[in-house]
Amino acid sequence: MALCAQHGVGAVFAPGPREMYPRENLTWVTVEKVSEPLCGRFRPGHFRGVATVCTKLFTIVGADAAFFGQKDAQQVAVIQRMAADLNLPLEIVVCPTVREPDGLAVSSRNQYLSPQERKEASVIYRSLQKAAELIRGGETAVARIAEQMREILGQVPALQVEYVSIVDAASLEDLPRVRGKVLIAVAGRLGSTRLIDNIVVDTTTK
Amino acid sequence: MALCAQHGVGAVFAPGPREMYPRENLTWVTVEKVSEPLCGRFRPGHFRGVATVCTKLFTIVGADAAFFGQKDAQQVAVIQRMAADLNLPLEIVVCPTVREPDGLAVSSRNQYLSPQERKEASVIYRSLQKAAELIRGGETAVARIAEQMREILGQVPALQVEYVSIVDAASLEDLPRVRGKVLIAVAGRLGSTRLIDNIVVDTTTK
Repeated sequence: MALCAQHGVGAVFAPGPREMYPRENLTWVTVEKVSEPLCGRFRPGHFRGVATVCTKLFTIVGADAAFFGQKDAQQVAVIQRMAADLNLPLEIVVCPTVREPDGLAVSSRNQYLSPQERKEASVIYRSLQKAAELIRGGETAVARIAEQMREILGQVPALQVEYVSIVDAASLEDLPRVRGKVLIAVAGRLGSTRLIDNIVVDTTTK
Repeated sequence: MALCAQHGVGAVFAPGPREMYPRENLTWVTVEKVSEPLCGRFRPGHFRGVATVCTKLFTIVGADAAFFGQKDAQQVAVIQRMAADLNLPLEIVVCPTVREPDGLAVSSRNQYLSPQERKEASVIYRSLQKAAELIRGGETAVARIAEQMREILGQVPALQVEYVSIVDAASLEDLPRVRGKVLIAVAGRLGSTRLIDNIVVDTTTK
């Protein structure tokens, strides 16, 4: 709250679960397809919960704009598609991922990493950088890019990779070959901490 | 439109399907439980479509109030629960069922009835009246009320009954015994025309 006041925030709405769900919730907002790949496979029901609570929040607040971090790329894609499909009268603003000096995406979860894990965690960003480099060099075969990313990620045996995905940045659909705006995304567990990260490469402007 | 103008309507919003669904619709609003019994069993996906398009319409129009007919009792229950769960800032107003002199609920579908079917269709309202009469007389066993309704409906062999249901008026859950506000609902087919009708009996105020 003090931080908000410092930054000139006029009002904070931070409801508790009972305020948001005063009765058994029977109404769910689901976004097909976009919710299903990537994290959707590892977190069943997660994006249904996100879409539902965001619809409620937007409606309660009467928001003109909502700000989401690019780090949660699938969340951004789900919310953008939901807002378009349901004609929600607000702008979804995507904020760039903030990174530590070694490239690790800033996340509240990073505090759970041991010093050793914290050091090793930067391998995820290095694998994403490798993909960007390959694409800039003209590589378009998704399988080959993913293979080289997995090779880098394999340098940290403690990292249990959940997925390495190169997909269309808007629909999150699989691509055999890189084209248009592509999302390159990685998820994995280091010890008990689940980490995700991604970059978007726009091949139309290169 | 002429009719609307006659009644002082200031604006009409009557979009076509392409305007409402300019792209493949991936986002669906579903209402669990309330959508499932009664017509939900005979029209899979119907209430998902209703809930989704109503969310879109309410959002586009910025409605303060929306008016639905009591004849479509389950639609009313679904929309009311959806509006509450999603915090939609509008009032759902339920309009009483309009009836022909013989009790048949007015519906655009009545025009598809043959003269013989049109005459026979009033049996549905007679069965509802019978239920109300039994409840006023102190009957509380749902099974016995339904049995007597089916007996009356059986007087028209051409009527293929889909359901005779006596349920809680808000949750639409089955009740073994009549209590509180109950919805008594019938659906069936006369020839190729599907007819539904219902009454609400409030046993708390009798």
